[in-house]
Amino acid sequence: MLTMISIDDVRAAAKRIEGVAHRTPVVTSAALDAIAGCSLFLKCESFQRAGAFKFRGAYNALSRVADEARARGVIAFSSGNHAQGVALAAKLLGIRATIVMPDYASRVKLDATRGYGADVVTYGRGEGREAIAEQIKAERGGTIIPPFDHPDVIAGQGTAALELLDEVPDLDVLVTPVGGGGLISGCATVAKALRPDIRVVGAEPEAGDDWSRSRRARRPVAIPEPDTIAEGLRTTSPGDITWPIADKLVDDFVTVSDDQIRGAMRVLFGRAKIVVEPAGAVPVAAAFAGKAGTAGSRIGIIISGGNVDADTFARLISSG
Amino acid sequence: MLTMISIDDVRAAAKRIEGVAHRTPVVTSAALDAIAGCSLFLKCESFQRAGAFKFRGAYNALSRVADEARARGVIAFSSGNHAQGVALAAKLLGIRATIVMPDYASRVKLDATRGYGADVVTYGRGEGREAIAEQIKAERGGTIIPPFDHPDVIAGQGTAALELLDEVPDLDVLVTPVGGGGLISGCATVAKALRPDIRVVGAEPEAGDDWSRSRRARRPVAIPEPDTIAEGLRTTSPGDITWPIADKLVDDFVTVSDDQIRGAMRVLFGRAKIVVEPAGAVPVAAAFAGKAGTAGSRIGIIISGGNVDADTFARLISSG
Repeated sequence: MLTMISIDDVRAAAKRIEGVAHRTPVVTSAALDAIAGCSLFLKCESFQRAGAFKFRGAYNALSRVADEARARGVIAFSSGNHAQGVALAAKLLGIRATIVMPDYASRVKLDATRGYGADVVTYGRGEGREAIAEQIKAERGGTIIPPFDHPDVIAGQGTAALELLDEVPDLDVLVTPVGGGGLISGCATVAKALRPDIRVVGAEPEAGDDWSRSRRARRPVAIPEPDTIAEGLRTTSPGDITWPIADKLVDDFVTVSDDQIRGAMRVLFGRAKIVVEPAGAVPVAAAFAGKAGTAGSRIGIIISGGNVDADTFARLISSG
Repeated sequence: MLTMISIDDVRAAAKRIEGVAHRTPVVTSAALDAIAGCSLFLKCESFQRAGAFKFRGAYNALSRVADEARARGVIAFSSGNHAQGVALAAKLLGIRATIVMPDYASRVKLDATRGYGADVVTYGRGEGREAIAEQIKAERGGTIIPPFDHPDVIAGQGTAALELLDEVPDLDVLVTPVGGGGLISGCATVAKALRPDIRVVGAEPEAGDDWSRSRRARRPVAIPEPDTIAEGLRTTSPGDITWPIADKLVDDFVTVSDDQIRGAMRVLFGRAKIVVEPAGAVPVAAAFAGKAGTAGSRIGIIISGGNVDADTFARLISSG
């Protein structure tokens, strides 16, 4: 079954999140442009509520849960930003949330998710998180909100591109990180509808190159769980719903090394003064490596988020 | 001689820097408000050109150098943000800049200042930087641009408050860091003119409490060079021009410890995702400590800048 979403779905999502999600700033920097040899427009979802774009899709999806189902709550599985996005959206909408998280998730993320009032159910390495979510659903009822493979989630993520193109209409290129593919599917839908000639690029870590491989194979390819500092992009294959959307609309998938990601984080810290999680620095690293667009291009970039714990960030930016 | 500046001087400065300086964003955060028990509006000069508010005053002052004097260049002495602000302003205006900096200034700051095309003259510990600047002036000619004690510099810094109050008019309190006093003098001039009932608070490190002591003594008091992580605020006494302005217009001077400054930097990193230099975190630390305004107040804060090198930032935010 092919599920496509339309720009009207994204526009409807934008209405739902209006006044609730932040309209995040678009940051520019002469220093960054000089490095990239292009004009970069950074849509900084690091300043989004709960620290990442995930809040957009989570809030849109939770808003669409029917009244009679709301009382039974929502269930999500995520070790990262989707967990916090769903937890905060549920709190704002008065819906009970149960979040299935690995017991090895960082204390900061567990605390933040609990801090939004969610019930956190942890599991150990090797246990299947989807199976646990399904079991909770069977026992207690509730609606599962998947991290990317859901049309309402995808439409919500697309609102980031809608805002960016509203503010900077004349982009030549749009680059987003690709993990599960929710962000790029929503953003590519918007970009190609508003600006058919725009080039849409998905950027991923070298070690987690499932999208690049899938593009070459012309079908979704699964890889072992990748070892990369971009923990938000440690997915092992494109999603069932996101693959056909992104495969149709995305012009190119490119990869960057962990060293390049770290280098981009250091530049974003030192010159733009913003805190970006490794996954968020991936498209910037691609632009610095000349993999996003030709010299002089106007490149819009979705910075996925800024959720990185202090010790990790300190280690990644320091010279030692 | 008493030199006051007026809001018209600041408005004229705003015209001069328009389209050259960034109109920096005002950042808000529910997480920060919860900690402070107040509504905080952070005017983030960390996103200003050259990374700090200093560019405003430098560009305004350099714009006012008469044509016949421009050819002889400008001279500034600073180990920090004023150096970079003057160097960039000079580059943009096509004026030669000579910056007198300590040879123990960080490599990052020396490189950044040279990167803007300035001639950097270094001096060793114990040498008088003002004397060196005067000597260069005597030998080569040129106009000295002081870091704070100059009406055009003060008027330029005041544009930060003009923009903040334009965006958030109904503030109860305005807090800025105080070092030499240029920022607070300009900002207090604006704040008291536009909103006479506003409370203006200067925040400084405990170890560098020259303004608090001066307020108590009712005259400028000099202290030994303070040992504090807020290196931008290591001044030893109020300025000759800034003291009478700030003494007249500032309601209160408050101090915070280095631990409180570090704590505020960690929160700004972890919850607001912004990189703030220690001096810039001082007024936030004051708000967190309940020293800026009563519970529920609407507090505008000027975050002075984001120029902090990676290793220092890593050390300050990490738990180790």
